[in-house]
Amino acid sequence: MTVGRGVTVALDGFGAERGFDVLAEGARLAAADGIGLRVFGPAHELGLDGVDGIEVVPTADWISNEEEAVPAVRAKKEASVVRAAREVAEGRAGAMASVGSTGATMAAATFGLRRLQGVQRPALAVQLPNPGGPPTLFLDVGANAEVRAQHLVQFAFLGAAFSAAVLEVERPRVGLLSVGEEAGKGREEVVAAHETLTAAAGIEFVGNVEGRDLPAGGADVVVTDGFTGNVSLKLMEGTARTLTGAIRAAARSNPLAALGGLLLRPALGGLRREMDPDATGGAVLLGLRGVAVVGHGSSGPEGVANAVRLAARCAALDAVGRTAALLEEGGASRASLADGAA
Amino acid sequence: MTVGRGVTVALDGFGAERGFDVLAEGARLAAADGIGLRVFGPAHELGLDGVDGIEVVPTADWISNEEEAVPAVRAKKEASVVRAAREVAEGRAGAMASVGSTGATMAAATFGLRRLQGVQRPALAVQLPNPGGPPTLFLDVGANAEVRAQHLVQFAFLGAAFSAAVLEVERPRVGLLSVGEEAGKGREEVVAAHETLTAAAGIEFVGNVEGRDLPAGGADVVVTDGFTGNVSLKLMEGTARTLTGAIRAAARSNPLAALGGLLLRPALGGLRREMDPDATGGAVLLGLRGVAVVGHGSSGPEGVANAVRLAARCAALDAVGRTAALLEEGGASRASLADGAA
Repeated sequence: MTVGRGVTVALDGFGAERGFDVLAEGARLAAADGIGLRVFGPAHELGLDGVDGIEVVPTADWISNEEEAVPAVRAKKEASVVRAAREVAEGRAGAMASVGSTGATMAAATFGLRRLQGVQRPALAVQLPNPGGPPTLFLDVGANAEVRAQHLVQFAFLGAAFSAAVLEVERPRVGLLSVGEEAGKGREEVVAAHETLTAAAGIEFVGNVEGRDLPAGGADVVVTDGFTGNVSLKLMEGTARTLTGAIRAAARSNPLAALGGLLLRPALGGLRREMDPDATGGAVLLGLRGVAVVGHGSSGPEGVANAVRLAARCAALDAVGRTAALLEEGGASRASLADGAA
Repeated sequence: MTVGRGVTVALDGFGAERGFDVLAEGARLAAADGIGLRVFGPAHELGLDGVDGIEVVPTADWISNEEEAVPAVRAKKEASVVRAAREVAEGRAGAMASVGSTGATMAAATFGLRRLQGVQRPALAVQLPNPGGPPTLFLDVGANAEVRAQHLVQFAFLGAAFSAAVLEVERPRVGLLSVGEEAGKGREEVVAAHETLTAAAGIEFVGNVEGRDLPAGGADVVVTDGFTGNVSLKLMEGTARTLTGAIRAAARSNPLAALGGLLLRPALGGLRREMDPDATGGAVLLGLRGVAVVGHGSSGPEGVANAVRLAARCAALDAVGRTAALLEEGGASRASLADGAA
């Protein structure tokens, strides 16, 4: 990933579950790619003084996972994640990234970077790894527990724009997560969004996608509400973990199976790398006038570096400008459904 | 599974995707366990004449997956699944089972068997296999796309009663699917249901369960709305299929890996049996005055037999009576939330 050289990323220097050393090591890896970093955190603990391309902006205050995100962001103007957002808003950085509290990062970015014209609700998007294929962009995975049809429609446009701009999918196929393929299946707002998307210009809508098709990569972008999306994302992680754990246990159950596991292991390396959540850099908050990436709190150095790389890539490819253009083109910015609709 | 000997099950003789032979073979397997069957289907195609314990009730009309379930059930009084429900309602069978259209079976059972006192919405429950542990009962997986808090509360009681009566879990731990462990996380109706369940008598409520914990067996019963539940169920199936497919592909990628796969294979047999969707017999519709089981349309003979066995087991263990008693005890039948609540 070389796209993003020369971009400056504002990195939250707090919140890495594995400590300041891991965060600092991730920053070093990203800087080695030619990405500029401004890191908001404790200079001494980070130990990044004199590293080429990295400037530490000494910051003592931060927002933890345990705090209520919205009030904390409003109260703590000097918290690291709030300062990182301000850095982008005021043009000193091209994008922000954090591996700290997802809620605080979303709130800091939403308040600090503001929404694109016509976007009512920003959405959190992740890249789902598909074994042997390009990732599927999946949103919303947690920004909006409750949505209306018009929000789902906007998520479709936001996702399509990101897929085209950043993931370089030419005409991204966009699906709507539901309980059946038929247009009439699902919650009221899903049925209404289906109808609007079927008629929408500027987007390649492929209809409803069922749960079983989401991991199979049938669409480039899959849209849902933040409750279903969050449950789904964690469920896929949990199912994969439970299943690989059970296979590992089977491979320990007798010597022949253990030998089999040993012989099979190298061939599984590629799959393991593909399925590694650190590989994609984390979630991106779409619909704002600036780029905000939320990495995994449990990231290792590569995970931190990939969050920064993803932020830099989004900035370099003008994800925000291209999203605004697609919203304009699709007319989704003129709230295609009345505000009071389902 | 010997519980259920002597019970008579009304079996829908249509709807098996793999044909009448597979359905008939499944009926024979269940009859061989001592379960009585009344099969509503085409006598000639089924070829079950003279099989001990099986009576075929010649039936020509049926409801396919392609039909709209509710109007079809209202219109076709002599359709096989409608007759099977009537058989239970009129006391000639102790339970019904179908591997045909899920929607038609739910509608036929709901109209034919009627709801238990105080139950507003029946819910569809499945047993999720846990590698190396007892299954988790998961509901609703599709009967109600939209729910209120009071429905989620009732699902909790319905699930707990079924878990205790049929799965023989002594004090079933009941969880609520949400996007975080904290009581305040999730949709409005989930937060309200959490509050009611925390205070409820007669139930062991363990709080919110996140997506990643569902496959890990942290609770005996997990409750959600039918949209999230349906997406989740299919997502788990899809993730497991994609992952095992990728592992199988890796095992074919070179000769050493292939040998490894071969040596590992026998040890994986137990896991494969545990994860086999045919093994649990399918979904049960809870909250009615009679037992209705919906098997998988794609069932093999064992899947059909297991759907019949599950139906017979529910009847023999008086799942309905015990559910009514728990609803009474928990006071959930007195609609513990006002009808107009979230």
